[in-house]
Amino acid sequence: MASPVNPPRGMRDFLPADKARREHALGVIREVYRAHGFDEIETPVVEDWSRLHAGLGGDNEKLSFSILKRGITPEALAAASEAGNAEQLADLGLRFDLTVPLTRFYASHRAELPPVFRAIQIAPVWRAERPQKGRYRQFVQADIDIIGESGALAEIELITATSEALSRLGLEGCVIRVNDRRILFGLLAHCGFAPDQHDRALITVDKLDKIGANGVVEELRELDDAAAERLGGVLAAIEPALVGDGIPLTGDAIRAVLPQDPAAGGEPSGLDAGVENLAGLGEALTGGLPEGVTLRFDPTLVRGMGYYTGTIFEIAHPGSGSSVGGGGRYDGMVGRFLGQDVPAVGFSIGFERVVDLISLPEDDGPDAVALVFDAEASPADLAALKRELVGRGHRVRLEKRQKNMKALLDRVAAEGFAGFANVRAGARRADELEIRPLA
Amino acid sequence: MASPVNPPRGMRDFLPADKARREHALGVIREVYRAHGFDEIETPVVEDWSRLHAGLGGDNEKLSFSILKRGITPEALAAASEAGNAEQLADLGLRFDLTVPLTRFYASHRAELPPVFRAIQIAPVWRAERPQKGRYRQFVQADIDIIGESGALAEIELITATSEALSRLGLEGCVIRVNDRRILFGLLAHCGFAPDQHDRALITVDKLDKIGANGVVEELRELDDAAAERLGGVLAAIEPALVGDGIPLTGDAIRAVLPQDPAAGGEPSGLDAGVENLAGLGEALTGGLPEGVTLRFDPTLVRGMGYYTGTIFEIAHPGSGSSVGGGGRYDGMVGRFLGQDVPAVGFSIGFERVVDLISLPEDDGPDAVALVFDAEASPADLAALKRELVGRGHRVRLEKRQKNMKALLDRVAAEGFAGFANVRAGARRADELEIRPLA
Repeated sequence: MASPVNPPRGMRDFLPADKARREHALGVIREVYRAHGFDEIETPVVEDWSRLHAGLGGDNEKLSFSILKRGITPEALAAASEAGNAEQLADLGLRFDLTVPLTRFYASHRAELPPVFRAIQIAPVWRAERPQKGRYRQFVQADIDIIGESGALAEIELITATSEALSRLGLEGCVIRVNDRRILFGLLAHCGFAPDQHDRALITVDKLDKIGANGVVEELRELDDAAAERLGGVLAAIEPALVGDGIPLTGDAIRAVLPQDPAAGGEPSGLDAGVENLAGLGEALTGGLPEGVTLRFDPTLVRGMGYYTGTIFEIAHPGSGSSVGGGGRYDGMVGRFLGQDVPAVGFSIGFERVVDLISLPEDDGPDAVALVFDAEASPADLAALKRELVGRGHRVRLEKRQKNMKALLDRVAAEGFAGFANVRAGARRADELEIRPLA
Repeated sequence: MASPVNPPRGMRDFLPADKARREHALGVIREVYRAHGFDEIETPVVEDWSRLHAGLGGDNEKLSFSILKRGITPEALAAASEAGNAEQLADLGLRFDLTVPLTRFYASHRAELPPVFRAIQIAPVWRAERPQKGRYRQFVQADIDIIGESGALAEIELITATSEALSRLGLEGCVIRVNDRRILFGLLAHCGFAPDQHDRALITVDKLDKIGANGVVEELRELDDAAAERLGGVLAAIEPALVGDGIPLTGDAIRAVLPQDPAAGGEPSGLDAGVENLAGLGEALTGGLPEGVTLRFDPTLVRGMGYYTGTIFEIAHPGSGSSVGGGGRYDGMVGRFLGQDVPAVGFSIGFERVVDLISLPEDDGPDAVALVFDAEASPADLAALKRELVGRGHRVRLEKRQKNMKALLDRVAAEGFAGFANVRAGARRADELEIRPLA
């Protein structure tokens, strides 16, 4: 049974050690993207209810927390009851992602932003999901976007900076799988799916790792039996290349794994443009990623969101069952509130997963010192001692002596302090202290 | 008329320059308190509705934003309509301060925390106030508390660390006014107010700077005519000492300004204990505060919240009409959810006011450089150049050449970049660049 002093269901308190680890990770992420020319922005945690339910959030819209209007009249309450719709009593809601706020922010402030805007937002979002292990109702997202650049330079800058951020966080051995939506659409056209079937077909292909190639083919027979059969052949040809080291991100390797006559469906497809794009990315990124980061082509990578238009990518880490980040190009969306297309490519880092994966130094460094004093010590003397040590660059914690000194010293060591000193009565200067290491 | 892409009413977007200024201030505050032995914690922005309306928040409870339950049934909606109470449809709310969450956090995690817990929380809170200049519906509070220490050492550590934080932020000339609730109660007893009138009388005394001594006396006549008259005499004796340099925080200066027979009301009062406390604080802090920070006794300082039990303090800065921070000892409150008294003393820094007061370096330092490239430049070459400069510690922004180069260079200079270089076709190494300063 829940204790009455717990945080709300599915949400977390962060104790000092957890908070320090999170702030460390945030600091590294901020620093790397800043060096790579990105600018941090912040938006309110709350957006207008109607904006959160405008269709940009997919299924997440249904998971949003709504905020009651203030001063609701009996008439409004009766009307909501009549309509059987409590949501009409809400005017605001907690954001469920950072994409909707970014889109609104960009529309609101475009004139004040550079023509190519490199944005980073690191902030909590809320979803009323059923709480379970590793899934929370408040969690932090880190979204990084380049808006206004239609060329591959945007993807290159984004993937380079993100790889460096993950590497600096100590996540070694990351594999970045890359695909292009135009290749997916080209393959579907090649198999004979009609253009208006492509979006539905992709939803099925996205389940490949869950239901297997046979499951995909069976499900797609509902759309087009012959096309589903052909797609089965294409998948069978691709799958062997995906095991082991996978497919390098080079033009030759990409073309080798795709059907030789990609536009056989009759429609001129964007497949060639997609291949050219990925080959260029692979060439530009070769030698430019931190050691241990691998770049791979994966023609079966779909990424769920319907708004992607070009490059898509996903980062896997050997320590995590699911991806630690992903994103892609979504040229139609950021401009939605402006009524025009604005090119954009974005990355979302799975901050909570990353924080779980990284290990941090357990202590605050050699300068963190606990001063153990007796109950009768003069507060003025203690204050003077602490001040002098802080001024010298120490982190200082005052601790009143207790009977069980071993317990006290064990605790402050666990709290990250590296040394301690017993304060003798009357000591007012740091050179009167003997600082000893904590085991 | 509001544009449809603005943030919600009374809330703000932070553009890159604003966000950088805020993060800088947060970084300084974190660093100083950390050196002084404080630990940062975080709680969810949302708390249970009933906890936010348990009477700990005073008038702020009425300003809280409530969150609708998910999946409200028609029956629940009808019942709320019947009762004329929309709030019964809410189960959560946005916190309106950081004190209620701290109190809950402490009750929940006490066993995992050190016996004297030095906590810092810096986080947004929400209040449904009428938006006006300088008052927002989402704003950041910085609360610093020492829990579990009943002695004056807590006040000394807190005031020392806070003074250093404000000084490091560049706020010079701060004046810390200090009082003790026991002195206030002692003065009221001296004048003849009955103990059960003290809380009400303090609410009136708190208006002294708005309605003047005469106004206070007139309002207090409703409680006790003779006592109000005597209080008028006490205030008249104190007021001349408050102008100019004010009253030093020394035992002699404090006693000189208080009535000679403080316990004349017959009741043994805590006034002597309050005087002794403040004299001790003044002695311990003398010489220990950053240059320019002044400590003053102000026997008319009340601070509104009813929960204070001992020392109270408020920091004024010449650049701000209102205080930039304040707090006090509140021994009865933190233990409320534990069912026992736990000594506590806390400071709240007016973060939004502080951010408005500080000036920051306008640029990102000499290493921030913009690389200006031509449309036909190779993305791979640009990526290699950028990588090398970032690796050398530069902040790098890629900028496509435009017709009006002056406008481009003016903009990147305004965005904080100190230098720029024109990228010649084919350049791939940083030593092929000539970095020139931006005006």
